[in-house]
Amino acid sequence: MRILGIDPGTLVVGYGLVLLDGRRYHSNDYGCIRIERKLPFPQRLKLISDATTELLLRTMPDVVAVEEVYVTQNAKTTLRLGHARGVILLAAVNRGHVISEYAPREIKQAVVGKGGASKRQVMWMISQLLALPPENLEEDAADALAVALCHGLRNTGNQIPVTSKLI
Amino acid sequence: MRILGIDPGTLVVGYGLVLLDGRRYHSNDYGCIRIERKLPFPQRLKLISDATTELLLRTMPDVVAVEEVYVTQNAKTTLRLGHARGVILLAAVNRGHVISEYAPREIKQAVVGKGGASKRQVMWMISQLLALPPENLEEDAADALAVALCHGLRNTGNQIPVTSKLI
Repeated sequence: MRILGIDPGTLVVGYGLVLLDGRRYHSNDYGCIRIERKLPFPQRLKLISDATTELLLRTMPDVVAVEEVYVTQNAKTTLRLGHARGVILLAAVNRGHVISEYAPREIKQAVVGKGGASKRQVMWMISQLLALPPENLEEDAADALAVALCHGLRNTGNQIPVTSKLI
Repeated sequence: MRILGIDPGTLVVGYGLVLLDGRRYHSNDYGCIRIERKLPFPQRLKLISDATTELLLRTMPDVVAVEEVYVTQNAKTTLRLGHARGVILLAAVNRGHVISEYAPREIKQAVVGKGGASKRQVMWMISQLLALPPENLEEDAADALAVALCHGLRNTGNQIPVTSKLI
């Protein structure tokens, strides 16, 4: 199973392709799409849309797992994040992909074992589970890998090794 | 000048094409795109995107004027509206259209002469300025015509006839 995780944003979109091979997960395609802040906002949406479509063509996922944006205290930021997330979902649905959405708490619960886990705990766990060097793992890419892994763990009956839950 | 006004929404998207002919505005293409509530949300975004692209092809506007969504008290609603607005802006930018955005207060100020005008005042004024029968004018279509008219009034130096300001 090929699961593409996406962490939406208006300036940085994290992505990570998680492959489930038997009972083992791994990833060799993850990173961040960065959008130039100075561009007019509609133009930024176009870049996010184009980059997402390219990503889908390259990774050919069976499922696209998208993080449900945090509803922040700032309504304007929430509205803008909604725009970015909208064009990402559209790119996926336009190519006929299955989409799964997960809230941050669900993702942390599935990956770390507690819904209130810190960013650092998520990054550490992702690097352990996927055997990735933590020093090269950017936060938004880790979040994208986490949502992909969350989909895998929740839909295959696979469990995180118990020892890893002890952090 | 052909100005297409759009009032974004996740279930109803209002639209209205306003033509500026000399110093007179008129419209013979306005209405609402309705999206089935029961469909999965990504599918609704696709329908909004496809309908907007069709609308742009049919109306061939010089400018697309889009209402800035009200930032409501409900963050989830704001986020969802952001998704719809994102795919509408994307459809316009993908076809190379010029986009102008106006806040509700700016629109009411330009069209009615006061930023705090009621929905009913906006609808009445739109029906007067564009000589449209008020009984056939839906609220979301009137809002879309208002944002188009706002763009016209603010960018051509045209003024609303003083008598119309007396409501």
